[in-house]
Amino acid sequence: MNHQQTHQNHAAGRPPVVGMVGAGQLARMTAAAAIGLGIRFRVLAAAPDESAAQVADTMLGDYRSTDDLMTFAAGCDVITFDHEHVPQAQVRALEQAGHVVWPSAAALRFTQDKLEMRSRLTQLGVPCPKFEPADSVADVVAFAGRTGWPVVLKAVAGGYDGRGVWVCEDPAAAAEVLSHGLPLLVEEYVPFERELAILVARSPSGHGVVYPVVQSVQRDGICVEVLAPAPRLSAETAVAAQRLGLELARDLDVIGLLAVELFETRRGGLLVNELAMRPHNTGHWTIEGARTSQFEQHLRAVLNWPLGSPAMAAPAAVMANVLGGTDPDLHGKLNHVMAADTALKVQLYGKPVRPGRKVGHVTALGGDLASLRDRAARAANYLATGSEEPAAEPVTGAGLPS
Amino acid sequence: MNHQQTHQNHAAGRPPVVGMVGAGQLARMTAAAAIGLGIRFRVLAAAPDESAAQVADTMLGDYRSTDDLMTFAAGCDVITFDHEHVPQAQVRALEQAGHVVWPSAAALRFTQDKLEMRSRLTQLGVPCPKFEPADSVADVVAFAGRTGWPVVLKAVAGGYDGRGVWVCEDPAAAAEVLSHGLPLLVEEYVPFERELAILVARSPSGHGVVYPVVQSVQRDGICVEVLAPAPRLSAETAVAAQRLGLELARDLDVIGLLAVELFETRRGGLLVNELAMRPHNTGHWTIEGARTSQFEQHLRAVLNWPLGSPAMAAPAAVMANVLGGTDPDLHGKLNHVMAADTALKVQLYGKPVRPGRKVGHVTALGGDLASLRDRAARAANYLATGSEEPAAEPVTGAGLPS
Repeated sequence: MNHQQTHQNHAAGRPPVVGMVGAGQLARMTAAAAIGLGIRFRVLAAAPDESAAQVADTMLGDYRSTDDLMTFAAGCDVITFDHEHVPQAQVRALEQAGHVVWPSAAALRFTQDKLEMRSRLTQLGVPCPKFEPADSVADVVAFAGRTGWPVVLKAVAGGYDGRGVWVCEDPAAAAEVLSHGLPLLVEEYVPFERELAILVARSPSGHGVVYPVVQSVQRDGICVEVLAPAPRLSAETAVAAQRLGLELARDLDVIGLLAVELFETRRGGLLVNELAMRPHNTGHWTIEGARTSQFEQHLRAVLNWPLGSPAMAAPAAVMANVLGGTDPDLHGKLNHVMAADTALKVQLYGKPVRPGRKVGHVTALGGDLASLRDRAARAANYLATGSEEPAAEPVTGAGLPS
Repeated sequence: MNHQQTHQNHAAGRPPVVGMVGAGQLARMTAAAAIGLGIRFRVLAAAPDESAAQVADTMLGDYRSTDDLMTFAAGCDVITFDHEHVPQAQVRALEQAGHVVWPSAAALRFTQDKLEMRSRLTQLGVPCPKFEPADSVADVVAFAGRTGWPVVLKAVAGGYDGRGVWVCEDPAAAAEVLSHGLPLLVEEYVPFERELAILVARSPSGHGVVYPVVQSVQRDGICVEVLAPAPRLSAETAVAAQRLGLELARDLDVIGLLAVELFETRRGGLLVNELAMRPHNTGHWTIEGARTSQFEQHLRAVLNWPLGSPAMAAPAAVMANVLGGTDPDLHGKLNHVMAADTALKVQLYGKPVRPGRKVGHVTALGGDLASLRDRAARAANYLATGSEEPAAEPVTGAGLPS
């Protein structure tokens, strides 16, 4: 949609204007949440057909351009982000010009530079995988001499071929990754039991809320499924994880959402894997599964409004991502899914289908986790492939009902 | 937002385009539901600042103009309505031009002409208040001779001074209403126990679903509160009401939503008071309180998609309308409400505050009806008046917890 030239400031009787830089599905789902709260919501999009640009007031522009960001911000009471790619200098320019920007440049840095993130977390005493900067094969070999192979190489920022993480079994594999010339760090390979995620919201007043801990299920390194709450998690570990999330949000001074991806080790310990400061795939279940969705929560946080209850709205929820297949017609397949499971909730992102691309998700709500997983997986698979046959065996492992 | 000139037809791989004539809060909340379903949603609005025009792709035009309607419909796969004011000739012109229009002109007629509605319902054997056309005071006096005073005069279509229903205690009061020269009908005054409402969705395939029966609470003739499910309703009466709704949708050939407002008489009988064929105030609780909101359901029905589960998502829900007060700043008061009740759901319509105008609603979800009523009424009252003191005593009566 087209950019409206005139915008109102957030004064008495005027609705607040929130601008989100980026127009992917996270911004799209935030747009839906903004409608109910009477918030004017705008996105800075690269193209008019981007996911959120289809449904929100849109300015076309480049998130790397200070000029475009300044123009965008001029009409907004608060600026926030649906990705972490706006460079530090540009975020700081917005702040220096007096715009309200959440999360701040200082906080965002920890999602933009993994070495900064790891160093800061270590300084805070937060358990992480062992890590070191890796400038050469010699560095990697020396590191592996202490931790053993395989090791994990990570791009400090960005990556190549759509990836930023490589598990390397030997020096030759490490050499291949190093040959691309990116700044890298090397981390120990953690033989984790399963992956958990914490979602926290924090407002400028310092108030924080945390959602129930969830389990995320990966296939080929892609999140395919999220189970809320994480099954078979001890109350002790759940509370420790939630406390960790709240403390991290405070210590990194995050305003808005903070998603923390964790490894649960075989001994029940928790290690921080990744951070994000925006709505997160592991929080999509909150749209129907929690009293306050992560998208509403993010808006409330960046506007310094009181945060909403993170309580679950059903005993359990399972979200499954819809990964694009070869058939471009999602809506043709949606009919079948809706007829087969009338209580399933579907979110489509308005994105053209490409193999492996996240084009939507489904959420099943109820009590029995095995049946919720089955319902969500069937629907997601049918939307992806048009087939009743599962594309792959369900992922099994720790925490998952068999 | 501005009208996009190019629109895609609903062919394989293209998202469907639904056009809603009218841009009030019903269209606004439908726009939010369309986002998740990947539906392109457009409204025909009279002004760019109307409630739904703020959040949906908008064409500015006059719903009474066949030209404007035709232009609007040209870009849409389905046309539907957020009010019943599009004249019959214009709806038929759309149909005759080959557009898909739901509900049809033939069905809509029963919401546009109360005499047609009453006649058809009587023909179908549906219990209604006794009625007759009223062309003169003599007609009214003759009718009252059989039913007793007071009687109810209703405008066959429209009304004056924002009203279309008048309770008349004597011939002089009837004469005053008749003096305005509107076509009228006279109905018996039903000393009902309480008001109930049924919400049904029906698709072109003939599939219908019905929501739990709700109780609506009026103050000064305005709906202030809806309780779902209707408390203290016998299973027998609930089933009879739901069957009545489904049968009416079928017999009137309604596609989309049908809301039926009912009187429950002191003997437990049901009489049909009013019909609407669109999302309805008595269904707002479904946004968070039902597995499928009425707005998603309406979209699914008019697109001939399988209908969603109407099951409740919580044991009970209470919705309270926010009626405008004298303070224009809703968002200033929203902070207080959000802090006081973090689990309350708020919907604001983006409409300027005017005394008595519906500018939003709140929904409380849980188990104990008395506490839900208290939470919803407090929040709605605070948003309206900025006062912790209730503006009026809670309505008491049949079905309501004291």
